[in-house]
Amino acid sequence: MKAAVYAGPRDIQVRDMPDAKIERATDVLVQITTTNICGSDLHMYEGRTEMEPGRILGHENVGVVVEVGSAVDRVKVGDAVCLPFNIGCGFCENCEKGLSGFCLTVNPGNAGGAYGFAGMGPYSGGQAELLRVPYGDYNCLILPRDAEEKQSDYVMLADIFPTGFHATELAGVQPGESVVVYGAGPVGLMAAMSSMLKGASQVMVVDTHKDRLALAEKVGAIPIDDTEGGGVEKVLELTGGKGADRGCECVGYQCCNMHREEVPNLTMNNLVQTVKATGRIGVVGVFVPEDPGAADKLEKRGRMAFDFGAFWFKGQSIGTGQANVKAYNRQLSRLIEHNRVKPSWIVSHELPLADAPVAYRNFDQRKDGWTKVVLKPAA
Amino acid sequence: MKAAVYAGPRDIQVRDMPDAKIERATDVLVQITTTNICGSDLHMYEGRTEMEPGRILGHENVGVVVEVGSAVDRVKVGDAVCLPFNIGCGFCENCEKGLSGFCLTVNPGNAGGAYGFAGMGPYSGGQAELLRVPYGDYNCLILPRDAEEKQSDYVMLADIFPTGFHATELAGVQPGESVVVYGAGPVGLMAAMSSMLKGASQVMVVDTHKDRLALAEKVGAIPIDDTEGGGVEKVLELTGGKGADRGCECVGYQCCNMHREEVPNLTMNNLVQTVKATGRIGVVGVFVPEDPGAADKLEKRGRMAFDFGAFWFKGQSIGTGQANVKAYNRQLSRLIEHNRVKPSWIVSHELPLADAPVAYRNFDQRKDGWTKVVLKPAA
Amino acid sequence: MKAAVYAGPRDIQVRDMPDAKIERATDVLVQITTTNICGSDLHMYEGRTEMEPGRILGHENVGVVVEVGSAVDRVKVGDAVCLPFNIGCGFCENCEKGLSGFCLTVNPGNAGGAYGFAGMGPYSGGQAELLRVPYGDYNCLILPRDAEEKQSDYVMLADIFPTGFHATELAGVQPGESVVVYGAGPVGLMAAMSSMLKGASQVMVVDTHKDRLALAEKVGAIPIDDTEGGGVEKVLELTGGKGADRGCECVGYQCCNMHREEVPNLTMNNLVQTVKATGRIGVVGVFVPEDPGAADKLEKRGRMAFDFGAFWFKGQSIGTGQANVKAYNRQLSRLIEHNRVKPSWIVSHELPLADAPVAYRNFDQRKDGWTKVVLKPAA
Amino acid sequence: MKAAVYAGPRDIQVRDMPDAKIERATDVLVQITTTNICGSDLHMYEGRTEMEPGRILGHENVGVVVEVGSAVDRVKVGDAVCLPFNIGCGFCENCEKGLSGFCLTVNPGNAGGAYGFAGMGPYSGGQAELLRVPYGDYNCLILPRDAEEKQSDYVMLADIFPTGFHATELAGVQPGESVVVYGAGPVGLMAAMSSMLKGASQVMVVDTHKDRLALAEKVGAIPIDDTEGGGVEKVLELTGGKGADRGCECVGYQCCNMHREEVPNLTMNNLVQTVKATGRIGVVGVFVPEDPGAADKLEKRGRMAFDFGAFWFKGQSIGTGQANVKAYNRQLSRLIEHNRVKPSWIVSHELPLADAPVAYRNFDQRKDGWTKVVLKPAA
Repeated sequence: MKAAVYAGPRDIQVRDMPDAKIERATDVLVQITTTNICGSDLHMYEGRTEMEPGRILGHENVGVVVEVGSAVDRVKVGDAVCLPFNIGCGFCENCEKGLSGFCLTVNPGNAGGAYGFAGMGPYSGGQAELLRVPYGDYNCLILPRDAEEKQSDYVMLADIFPTGFHATELAGVQPGESVVVYGAGPVGLMAAMSSMLKGASQVMVVDTHKDRLALAEKVGAIPIDDTEGGGVEKVLELTGGKGADRGCECVGYQCCNMHREEVPNLTMNNLVQTVKATGRIGVVGVFVPEDPGAADKLEKRGRMAFDFGAFWFKGQSIGTGQANVKAYNRQLSRLIEHNRVKPSWIVSHELPLADAPVAYRNFDQRKDGWTKVVLKPAA
Repeated sequence: MKAAVYAGPRDIQVRDMPDAKIERATDVLVQITTTNICGSDLHMYEGRTEMEPGRILGHENVGVVVEVGSAVDRVKVGDAVCLPFNIGCGFCENCEKGLSGFCLTVNPGNAGGAYGFAGMGPYSGGQAELLRVPYGDYNCLILPRDAEEKQSDYVMLADIFPTGFHATELAGVQPGESVVVYGAGPVGLMAAMSSMLKGASQVMVVDTHKDRLALAEKVGAIPIDDTEGGGVEKVLELTGGKGADRGCECVGYQCCNMHREEVPNLTMNNLVQTVKATGRIGVVGVFVPEDPGAADKLEKRGRMAFDFGAFWFKGQSIGTGQANVKAYNRQLSRLIEHNRVKPSWIVSHELPLADAPVAYRNFDQRKDGWTKVVLKPAA
Repeated sequence: MKAAVYAGPRDIQVRDMPDAKIERATDVLVQITTTNICGSDLHMYEGRTEMEPGRILGHENVGVVVEVGSAVDRVKVGDAVCLPFNIGCGFCENCEKGLSGFCLTVNPGNAGGAYGFAGMGPYSGGQAELLRVPYGDYNCLILPRDAEEKQSDYVMLADIFPTGFHATELAGVQPGESVVVYGAGPVGLMAAMSSMLKGASQVMVVDTHKDRLALAEKVGAIPIDDTEGGGVEKVLELTGGKGADRGCECVGYQCCNMHREEVPNLTMNNLVQTVKATGRIGVVGVFVPEDPGAADKLEKRGRMAFDFGAFWFKGQSIGTGQANVKAYNRQLSRLIEHNRVKPSWIVSHELPLADAPVAYRNFDQRKDGWTKVVLKPAA
Repeated sequence: MKAAVYAGPRDIQVRDMPDAKIERATDVLVQITTTNICGSDLHMYEGRTEMEPGRILGHENVGVVVEVGSAVDRVKVGDAVCLPFNIGCGFCENCEKGLSGFCLTVNPGNAGGAYGFAGMGPYSGGQAELLRVPYGDYNCLILPRDAEEKQSDYVMLADIFPTGFHATELAGVQPGESVVVYGAGPVGLMAAMSSMLKGASQVMVVDTHKDRLALAEKVGAIPIDDTEGGGVEKVLELTGGKGADRGCECVGYQCCNMHREEVPNLTMNNLVQTVKATGRIGVVGVFVPEDPGAADKLEKRGRMAFDFGAFWFKGQSIGTGQANVKAYNRQLSRLIEHNRVKPSWIVSHELPLADAPVAYRNFDQRKDGWTKVVLKPAA
């Protein structure tokens, strides 16, 4: 099968690889029809992780079931399915509580596994023609009849829509509240859309990329361009000086200041300033326990010079971590089915799998207009 | 009236002061019968705050109502009452949600007011014979018939019992779970007792003071003496390597390592290590936005070198801030009334108000056996 | 002052009455600018309650503050305010938990008080030129600058918008879920709008009045006309046979079958049938402990032949009771302010206070097109 | 294998039956070491259900794994395990939310399956030497090292401890609150113990059996003997006239009045009376959609003459249904492991399986002293 393979820093190659296949009785085999490039793929692409060359990337996948293992009861050949980026077993202490992003079974010694991701277990990614799905009955979301025509919407259920939604859950967004979202990348845009969906009265999105901010505006959010600074002051002004009720961090440890320098504490300390006393902050941008390639001493050790004093004094709280996709994807799929949301509004490019190398390069450079890339292995 | 007055760093004097009196129609005047010294009084005592000399300290107060303002409806002369350390109005945006620790009315420009506390408004403290209670109908907890005999228990409802309980609420302690509490001072002990009360299966308390750890053991907690280090390893061992389900920070920014040096990030980073992935951490130890007297650069600005990467990777969450005492004191009083708990077990000294100077000195030095001091203005 | 007075069953008269005035230091006096007729006023209008003739009706009120008592701190003369229909003290056990609809102070011996309502205390209603508001600092919602122009929207915050929203809170509506609402009167319509606001994927509204169903459709709900029966089957069909995730009862004990006969268990038993196993049901339609005028024996005693067996077997749950308006009105007002909702879409008639008698008559008869009446005392 | 078989109304026989065996790759085979008789077995025993003669009863089971299917990953031969009475698949819409008591897979057309129970699927019970456990990785709770010595404690995790605990969860019991429990059978006693465990200040248990009430008193509850009536008044007196904060129904549709006549609405209407306004009620006693054998017309159709008017007026809420055992059993097992609770305190008889017929007879007759029977297939 054809697959997009990580060959080393900033080097993605589309190669012939051995076909994915059923390995265990509980597996499901899926022919991938749509697979996205995710912002978190870029951490690997840039060589900032321990990713082994030769592995297939891709954890945002939709496809059709072509084979099921002998112990699979629910999923049938022919089902259109969306696969959560995190792989769960369904029966460990965390999965049974709905914390499928922290499965204790699939990546022994760690909490959480995923397709084609550094440190998340041995699973191949789905930027390929075929994907092996472990614990298929647990991990497949079966899609409704309009799966094919809305494929670019449903594929967002694999990661970024639930992840953006998770930010708003961690932040506890309630109807009528104000929300500030840092980052207008795909996840930040989904957090903005999710906040609107939940009935927020004001959703402010802070970023420095005009193309992304324009997408935020399309779903009713207030774009705040921080290119020249002033973002903090603008949020305070819009909230009568008190700060937003809720905040979402959708950037992560590689966040940059207006000079494009990495300043890992930038968004978190801005959130402490721009969220009200007693407000909550949801953090879905990726932060890592060690970052040997970082410039700063603290950052190398995964530390942050965090405004803990102000944070405590304001009585704020923080929730973090990757989204437990299965906790949300079923309900969110109904919103797509009933035409309440259209998460594909952020898609800028639909390309054949063969164009993966070009797509990675442009998306990594945040080239204007490359907001989200969808790959089609069958094209 | 007699009162304990802050005269400057490490200088408390008992002086004659003008009688507290009704100033507004919604005030209540209380004759104080029991008033405690709190660990947070020591931040002021040590000169680490902007406290003005000449002010009366004391925010853990119990007494009898001697006069009520003309607009007071509920509270009557003769009622035995316990006063939450934080003063609320009852009608602002935060009070109406039960966030009485972040009242927007009583300390304009800030969220939250308190008796006799730096930065918490102009209110005199209760280490005195009389105390003016603003918004008396809202702020007085009327005590049951056994108020007098259990005075040393009920006085704990003013602050440390609700504050310790708040730590367990922020951490989300559930029946059957394991909890690690950092700090066996009065608040940490109350967090341990509250965890037991909520049905935790294992409550581990980490400290370096043997007298305090002995008190923790009395309520069923597992004392962990960190004097020689090894506390982190011990918690991991007791929880099968996975960490505690929940963690409580009950020390604050002046936490010290085993050499009695202040290391402000010590407890928080230990919590990140010793709480499981997906676990929650409640922080009620005081942290401040600015600490000009600190040795370290980060600390001066209220910053902490926090293990944010590990924290995020484990998908943990943190809740912080002072307790909204009114959210808990009524229910907790019933536990005292029905003899389910006896928070006075931590009291080591009951002294007349005149002994306040000696009491402050010994408590501040963490002198062995001075675990909690109760003052009696009428003695 | 002019006021709409209950003179007996189906007899409302606009009379000259003594001016409302400040009676206690914590009172606020409001000049009413807009006041609605509520569906629950009809229980009194029809003589189905113990309402004393001579009392002023009206509990959905907006106006301008013309005088404040000496102990009022927050509210100022000139403030535009909306008054929650339930009156709270702000300091009793229930108010301090946010259960202001069950205040233990304002209507001694009962839980809950209201303006101009049978059994809810001695308070006069606001279908008048002036209204006395007890505990003004607690009970007034101060409106933003656009208060005057959006008066017909903000007045809905006094009762029906929070009440409809409360139904969805009791039912626990979450994004992506399906909701069935029984009753398309003003409260049912607000429950439908609130469900849409919270991101429900399908909102089904069952009623027999075409004018009301047309209004439901305008906010995106699916109207189900039960005039000829078949409503239950339709809901099951739309939800793939499993029933809706959540249900809202917005009719109450005077609900009627398709022959306009009162069948008090009709909506509740239909809800048990049309809500899924494990689903929740919010009940804001009024049910009463005694109904001496009822035809049926059970009903006289406030009893219902309820399908408890099916209810238990499906593991459903029910939440009930009048809305704690203060728990929601502040947040909901921001949705009006930021143009996210326009609750006045249900208003069919804006009339001078003098027309109250006519308005009551038509509204009581559910005359076609009389969906919601707003009265203007100053007109 | 030997097994206790339902041979018809009030006829249990211990017979030789074909050995249970692995039927599917995800099955686990367990040798039963302890199996209880449950109060709900009596509905079948008395012939009040559609139970087919010849089926093996028993849904409270503990044992040792003797064989695992080829697709089982977690459970190993030799593991001591406790089996939740409800069987879940782990991957359906309800199981993935933790609602394992309402599994949509194991009992097609219904929500929920169980071992040896009428209407709950084709699964054999565990009052036998061997038990087949479907979806073994999901359904087995692996017990800690002290499993053998504390077997009579751990077996309570199969049903009655989680079920009693569930009652307190549905009721929302919080520390410091008062709770009234109707029924001092095994489940009611577990609800009382769970309430104490959660820090309730007052736990009142109402029943008419002195042996059961004595057991309630042993865990700190207040026994209320309703044999001569007066139970309602006693609860009101103990709660200062306002009613308990929370209520638990642990009896079900076969509840009897003081004359031992079935009065199905007795406990529910008493709960409405004795729980405070705004209080919550958890119902785990079994109610059924149809009861053809009932005396009363309403009851035959599964209806109840419920005090809905008073219930609504007080703003109460109700949660119902069988416990999702897996939602609680892991945490509760830790309480047994760490010696915080000892649920076997209710056991009156430990008997060999051969004595099942006698045991059923005595337990069904509520013979004095027969509070809970544990059967030992290996004895």
